[in-house]
Amino acid sequence: MKLSIALIQMMGSMDKTASIEKARKMILEAAKNGARLIVLPEMWNCPYSSDYFKDYAEPEDGQTYSFMASIAKTANIYLVGGSIPERDQGRVFNTCFFFDPQGELIGKHRKAHLFDIDVPGKIKFVESETLTAGDKATVVDTEFGKVGLAICYDVRFPELFRKMALMGAKIIVLPAAFSIPTGEAHWEISLRARALDNQVYILACSPARDIDGPYQAYGGSGIVDPWGEFQDIAQAEETIIYGEIDLARVDEVREQLPLLKHRRPELY
Amino acid sequence: MKLSIALIQMMGSMDKTASIEKARKMILEAAKNGARLIVLPEMWNCPYSSDYFKDYAEPEDGQTYSFMASIAKTANIYLVGGSIPERDQGRVFNTCFFFDPQGELIGKHRKAHLFDIDVPGKIKFVESETLTAGDKATVVDTEFGKVGLAICYDVRFPELFRKMALMGAKIIVLPAAFSIPTGEAHWEISLRARALDNQVYILACSPARDIDGPYQAYGGSGIVDPWGEFQDIAQAEETIIYGEIDLARVDEVREQLPLLKHRRPELY
Repeated sequence: MKLSIALIQMMGSMDKTASIEKARKMILEAAKNGARLIVLPEMWNCPYSSDYFKDYAEPEDGQTYSFMASIAKTANIYLVGGSIPERDQGRVFNTCFFFDPQGELIGKHRKAHLFDIDVPGKIKFVESETLTAGDKATVVDTEFGKVGLAICYDVRFPELFRKMALMGAKIIVLPAAFSIPTGEAHWEISLRARALDNQVYILACSPARDIDGPYQAYGGSGIVDPWGEFQDIAQAEETIIYGEIDLARVDEVREQLPLLKHRRPELY
Repeated sequence: MKLSIALIQMMGSMDKTASIEKARKMILEAAKNGARLIVLPEMWNCPYSSDYFKDYAEPEDGQTYSFMASIAKTANIYLVGGSIPERDQGRVFNTCFFFDPQGELIGKHRKAHLFDIDVPGKIKFVESETLTAGDKATVVDTEFGKVGLAICYDVRFPELFRKMALMGAKIIVLPAAFSIPTGEAHWEISLRARALDNQVYILACSPARDIDGPYQAYGGSGIVDPWGEFQDIAQAEETIIYGEIDLARVDEVREQLPLLKHRRPELY
């Protein structure tokens, strides 16, 4: 089965309503161009900074959530809504909502690994000061097979991706906003390794780089095939990446090189 | 603590005694040049083919083993003896022996994942027809810290490398003989991903490519640092790769980006 997808590498802004309007425009464009599964980036409705997550956070039925449910239905597409700050019982999560073409919520992942890093002179970011981590791996059943969801720093943990593959995922969607230094060092290799080791498609979607904003994302939204090769990858500017993924390719690769069958779980 | 290492990317041959003599010469050269830890490639005393493993196999105290113990002592070096076909109770293993500078065996790893692959028109290899798999992860204590051992196809399994890292390994040595097609597709990315994810040094040692032999190895022996970058990497020809690894760099990377601490084992 083949599936047309689009990755919306949109430029964020300080203005949530403007971000929603831009997302609407880009989603409608991608749907018009034939995409059946559309992906937004991490924290696309909010500046990517611990200073803002709390102020921009919404409960599950808030403005941004309602927009996503509505646009999925209007455009008649599956929408992986990147991530947004979600408020729940006084806590804030970094949450990905997944909608079907009826606008129904079919899955939800809360970022399970929070990004706390300190590379002197290059980057310091302590997400755990303001966010709470999710507590599960997420795989969602769809008409085109099982889809895993993970967010940004989750990609650093091979265990999570292996778990999603063993839960049946053949596609894993990763909204992410890597920084420039960690992106240059590790973005491509991390995406390729997760795809290759688990023989899945990885669809990664980053915000565009906003050189005037509070955080410069690496960009590089792209599609990695189950052999570990990029089918396409963006630069840092605002763009939509289109692609077609072939679920039969997952089965073919897994037959030729049966990594999942060759595991020795009794040793690990 | 810094450690000088050498990777012996030697050309194999059909003549075991000639292979041993070549290994002796190259090890003595590397030791003379200051290497303290020397690594041989996978199946360096035997053609890399299921047709030969059984005939070339030796018990643990055989000709090749005795040579390795002796040369480690003579050269006053740590020797990771690549791998050789080891005969034990009628079965044959693909085994790595690790000797200290007194010529004492300090560790032993039997390849735990056997390479069975069938990519039509490119490569077919069914190692499990002639070899038996090992049944454990192997980490060895040394004066310069804990060293993990894995062999070739073992590198495809992130679980094994994670386990070695959690057992305390800061260096993982990988004798390996990737094929040309899988090497071109996956050698560099697999080594880099294992190093990066686990924040360890990877020392990978391949045979040189023998275009007239029964198997053409990819080559590409190299050193990957705990940030996931190659310090050095060979081409396909016979050569010795030298390098210095700095165990303090492992601690530094793990402090800046504490991946091992950020794991969520309760989720996997």
